Amino acid sequence: MAYSLPNAGGERLVAQMQFLIEIDRLKTILRQTPISDASRQENTAEHSWHLAMCATVLVEHANEPVDVARVIELLLLHDLVEIDAGDTFVYAANDPAVAAAQELAETAAADRIFGLLPNDQAVLLRARWNEFEAKQTPESRFAKAIDRVHPMLLNLASGGGSWAAHGVTADKTRRLIDSTIPGGSTVLADYAHEVVNLALDRGILLPPVE
Amino acid sequence: MAYSLPNAGGERLVAQMQFLIEIDRLKTILRQTPISDASRQENTAEHSWHLAMCATVLVEHANEPVDVARVIELLLLHDLVEIDAGDTFVYAANDPAVAAAQELAETAAADRIFGLLPNDQAVLLRARWNEFEAKQTPESRFAKAIDRVHPMLLNLASGGGSWAAHGVTADKTRRLIDSTIPGGSTVLADYAHEVVNLALDRGILLPPVE
Repeated sequence: MAYSLPNAGGERLVAQMQFLIEIDRLKTILRQTPISDASRQENTAEHSWHLAMCATVLVEHANEPVDVARVIELLLLHDLVEIDAGDTFVYAANDPAVAAAQELAETAAADRIFGLLPNDQAVLLRARWNEFEAKQTPESRFAKAIDRVHPMLLNLASGGGSWAAHGVTADKTRRLIDSTIPGGSTVLADYAHEVVNLALDRGILLPPVE
Repeated sequence: MAYSLPNAGGERLVAQMQFLIEIDRLKTILRQTPISDASRQENTAEHSWHLAMCATVLVEHANEPVDVARVIELLLLHDLVEIDAGDTFVYAANDPAVAAAQELAETAAADRIFGLLPNDQAVLLRARWNEFEAKQTPESRFAKAIDRVHPMLLNLASGGGSWAAHGVTADKTRRLIDSTIPGGSTVLADYAHEVVNLALDRGILLPPVE
């Protein structure tokens, strides 16, 4: 429980500061993926930073022209709902019951967390979050592709990560790639398949189950 | 030590991916400031994310009109040099010898880390880092103000943080506020002084030394 901040500078600034200290909790939400040196699990705040840096550097590989500032904005806030709803392992989310429960929890979380802001900002940031989830814009499709390829880089770099921990097979990983990444970047989708190939060579991803 | 990534997709993509996995190390660089629940020190990657969110929400309080996308870009990469140079406690950096050594170390770090990228991107991101450091643009002045007010929020929220750990006095904190924050945002400078007042009331910041 964080101590309260000053009640100073007017209602608007007070609400903004309350939101900003509330979202500090994203630093305590742990993901399935480890950081690259395998010393610990990644948390969602640093994950969001890393995705924004990926967008900055990889934007030339987007299928369509994108506003990189918008991509970054989407990526910085796309996981704020995990403060209330937690992280769902991407392979578990393929179960329709798990996915439905997660969607309900995330919608309630978005209501609460963005609702801490002054109304105009709550509406704007909530719209960005909806945009990311809906994948109807070039920016959100590219942002989703980044979000999908990034954990694969960390799993490979760390020597297995969540693949090893959960006994993931290459066929599942390839289906996950094909369902999201080519919609945002065929270049990154091809690269992701090379990550799978290398992971198979190294024995850190299980062979496909036929 | 991270395992290598695929040598696929061409020289340019390979260099970009190498840079992106190298900067994952920012997640292991610890700052003096704790996260708001006081459970552990903040790392520099999640710090950079939080600053970008602060810029998103607080941009209306900048003294001058700023391009918020540029502010966010500066904040996301301003601390990458800490991968090699480490974090210098802001109060220690007032010592000229410490500051000079830190500047040398950070310049060498910027050369190495941005140098991993394809040349055009290395030049661009290095220019952004220089811009942040030089404080000659409205965007960099506002970014510096955010970078300075943020640890004060965490110290207050966590019940003392780096103030308590290092026996910092209120006069030093007020000088630090006045040297940076009003140049980017007088609103945030006033708020920061209210943070000091509240910290004094709570006894988590030492009274001024006269």
